[in-house]
Amino acid sequence: MKNYDAIVIGTGSGISIANKLLRDIPDARVAVIDRDKPGGICLTRGCIPSKLVISPVEVLHDIERLSGLIEVKDIRVNFRRLMERMREKVGRESSMIERSLGERENIDYFKEEASFTGPYRLKVGGEEITSKKIFIGSGSRPMVPEIKGLRNAGYLTSDTLLELEDMPESMVIVGGGYVAVEYGNFFARAGCDVKIVEMMPRILSNEEPEISRIVQKELSNHAELFTSHRVTGVERNGNVKRVVAEGPDGRVVVEGEEILLAVGRESNSDILKPWLGGIETDERGWIKVNEFLEASVPGIYAIGDANGKYMFRHVANREAAIAYANAFHDAGVKMDYSAVPHAVFTQPEVGSVGMTEKEAVERFGRENILIGFEELKTTGKGLAMNSTGFAKVIVHRETGKILGGHIAGKSASVLVQEIATLMALDATYHAALHALHIHPSLSEVVSWAFGNLMSVEEYHRLMEKLGY
Amino acid sequence: MKNYDAIVIGTGSGISIANKLLRDIPDARVAVIDRDKPGGICLTRGCIPSKLVISPVEVLHDIERLSGLIEVKDIRVNFRRLMERMREKVGRESSMIERSLGERENIDYFKEEASFTGPYRLKVGGEEITSKKIFIGSGSRPMVPEIKGLRNAGYLTSDTLLELEDMPESMVIVGGGYVAVEYGNFFARAGCDVKIVEMMPRILSNEEPEISRIVQKELSNHAELFTSHRVTGVERNGNVKRVVAEGPDGRVVVEGEEILLAVGRESNSDILKPWLGGIETDERGWIKVNEFLEASVPGIYAIGDANGKYMFRHVANREAAIAYANAFHDAGVKMDYSAVPHAVFTQPEVGSVGMTEKEAVERFGRENILIGFEELKTTGKGLAMNSTGFAKVIVHRETGKILGGHIAGKSASVLVQEIATLMALDATYHAALHALHIHPSLSEVVSWAFGNLMSVEEYHRLMEKLGY
Repeated sequence: MKNYDAIVIGTGSGISIANKLLRDIPDARVAVIDRDKPGGICLTRGCIPSKLVISPVEVLHDIERLSGLIEVKDIRVNFRRLMERMREKVGRESSMIERSLGERENIDYFKEEASFTGPYRLKVGGEEITSKKIFIGSGSRPMVPEIKGLRNAGYLTSDTLLELEDMPESMVIVGGGYVAVEYGNFFARAGCDVKIVEMMPRILSNEEPEISRIVQKELSNHAELFTSHRVTGVERNGNVKRVVAEGPDGRVVVEGEEILLAVGRESNSDILKPWLGGIETDERGWIKVNEFLEASVPGIYAIGDANGKYMFRHVANREAAIAYANAFHDAGVKMDYSAVPHAVFTQPEVGSVGMTEKEAVERFGRENILIGFEELKTTGKGLAMNSTGFAKVIVHRETGKILGGHIAGKSASVLVQEIATLMALDATYHAALHALHIHPSLSEVVSWAFGNLMSVEEYHRLMEKLGY
Repeated sequence: MKNYDAIVIGTGSGISIANKLLRDIPDARVAVIDRDKPGGICLTRGCIPSKLVISPVEVLHDIERLSGLIEVKDIRVNFRRLMERMREKVGRESSMIERSLGERENIDYFKEEASFTGPYRLKVGGEEITSKKIFIGSGSRPMVPEIKGLRNAGYLTSDTLLELEDMPESMVIVGGGYVAVEYGNFFARAGCDVKIVEMMPRILSNEEPEISRIVQKELSNHAELFTSHRVTGVERNGNVKRVVAEGPDGRVVVEGEEILLAVGRESNSDILKPWLGGIETDERGWIKVNEFLEASVPGIYAIGDANGKYMFRHVANREAAIAYANAFHDAGVKMDYSAVPHAVFTQPEVGSVGMTEKEAVERFGRENILIGFEELKTTGKGLAMNSTGFAKVIVHRETGKILGGHIAGKSASVLVQEIATLMALDATYHAALHALHIHPSLSEVVSWAFGNLMSVEEYHRLMEKLGY
């Protein structure tokens, strides 16, 4: 049984742990394990390939907004080329990681499934290996619920979709989270007949209701949305797949050439079996960690999707850095999730950080928070681009501390960064007023929202008046 | 002779001073003077109308970058509609300001030229008026140099260009600053045959050389650039205007249907005659102010272009707020110009804040600064959009304080805001590393640039290697 200075499970953010350890202790022995193509979910089947595929359609929306000013006769998305480019770029990056893993003398790279066999002990391939420091970055996978007829009819997930050569003519998307909405928006704009079936009353149900509404309104121009619809079965009739769902007005049957299943992600703990190593998981299999990211067994850390907290690569990267510092430098650093930004790359784009209004009200009470709001079209640059969307910011009334920011519209993923950075610095909203903002630029929307704070009641009256 | 509690000259940022005074002292008497359409240069003939006209062509560049992925057969800029929309939106806004000025009982609004006749005394229309508090926001105007034949041949400025109905088929632009380059880029992409004649060896000569080069390279695909060319004369031959210039290889003659003169702005002090009020100006007529924005005569303040410092509306707005606080609340606030961001709306877009490399080296010495660099295409989102461009950041080696940031590329005007905000907070670059950035998003380029600091020498070796 081979003993290592560290075992890293997963080649996403975990790779940085192996690299740091070998930089600090050049003769350390490290095992790196991943049954999949190296690079982690984000690179190989998550955010990077999806953005490579979907981002280019942004310009279709821009042109739509500038109708009459920029005249376009014929515009077409070359799906085949988009997919080829994506696979080529992802493949190249992943191969580089694979090569580098193979070349490093102090790394044993196992392209195999691993599972715990005892405390600090894993079986991988035919071997058993052991280490007092194990970093679990085993990721997650698309959840496949038990739906009658589904397996038989066949379906795509965000993994298998990446293998498509040609664009389906029609597609039923089951789910309404960011994967469903990003791909739904893309396929619909690219010319596919898209229908989205979501159980919740609104798409992007983790976002602010105003954000859901504006994305939903825009998306409805291109796709058919069935919210509050629970899928009860799937049938196949030749080349046509039928999704049967129960909604407020009864049963609907939604047809398409393909079904894309996007109902969330589940843990890989059934494969990894952390409980055999004495490691506690929650009821969904996510590995429980304390604020130092250490699991119930000392020296074992879980990062990224594996701990079930925030499934974003930028969070996983930070967790990897913190886990490493805590494991090897006794740093005692706590992971801080208070300023985790995220984006949804739809049109309008969504950028969000921190607490939602609901969370802030629950935490501090309605009377202790203020909400700021500004529309993009109020800024000169937004006006010039005929932009839709808005910035909503949430502030603690007494301290002025920024609790959250939620933006829909052009460049939202970039605009939200100013708020995320201010929150990371624990700054008050006055900082956003103090900093000069280019006039005219879309950035003004953030500063103006902070300059336009009101009570929760006033805010909701304003929303009603503006029709959001 | 009528005495006022305040006289505000100019209806740009100065309007906010009148509004604040009347909010604080409702029965104050205020004179507001502007010979031009109200709203100031920015609204009526500067940044707002220019962005309304030029911004929509951004999508042409985006589509160019996505060639092969998004296929467009026929794309046309509707110049006439762009100009109409601009005039309509600007006109509406300006009329609203005009109406509101006319309606307010405590404001006497003079749509006239004003000039000083003595200390605290101005002649406006037929009257003389006086106040112990005078705010000079008299702006600036396009400079018209003495060039042989120019007046006779006729020319456009950034003012008169806004009256165009149809797009000229060809245009010679004299100048290479941001006005020349923004309009040059716009007209060239919109299908006009554009030639730019600039005296300096590079366009955008106030920006970092790398920024000039990348904009110049891109612009050269659409327009003809004559840098290091000094205009010596202009001739007219029927409908053709000829600009004669001397360059490194001798004399060139550049022809066009129109000439756009964009060689800078000059003071309106020849009209205002501040010296008759005892107010000092510099040799170019800009009003000298101290750090409290007070002119050489107590109680008299100069804001915006009039003081000749930073000709940006966002600076003028801040100066107006500070001048008011100092004049009426004895606030003793100093104007801080260390984190003034600005943008150039070309493709690639430019966003910049703080010191250039040259300024930082002069101030602190080559060995005491670090430069960080990252290309947009390194980020997943930049890769997805086939983005060109980069972020360059400048940091003080010992303290880690951020001295400047210079970005070229998609969304540069928004990306630079994070740096401007950090600089306004006097933060170190560690803040940009500490704050989580969405992966993938263009924002990563800023944080990665700060994560990739090097010596000035290393930086220049890198630039050479990358071919910037």
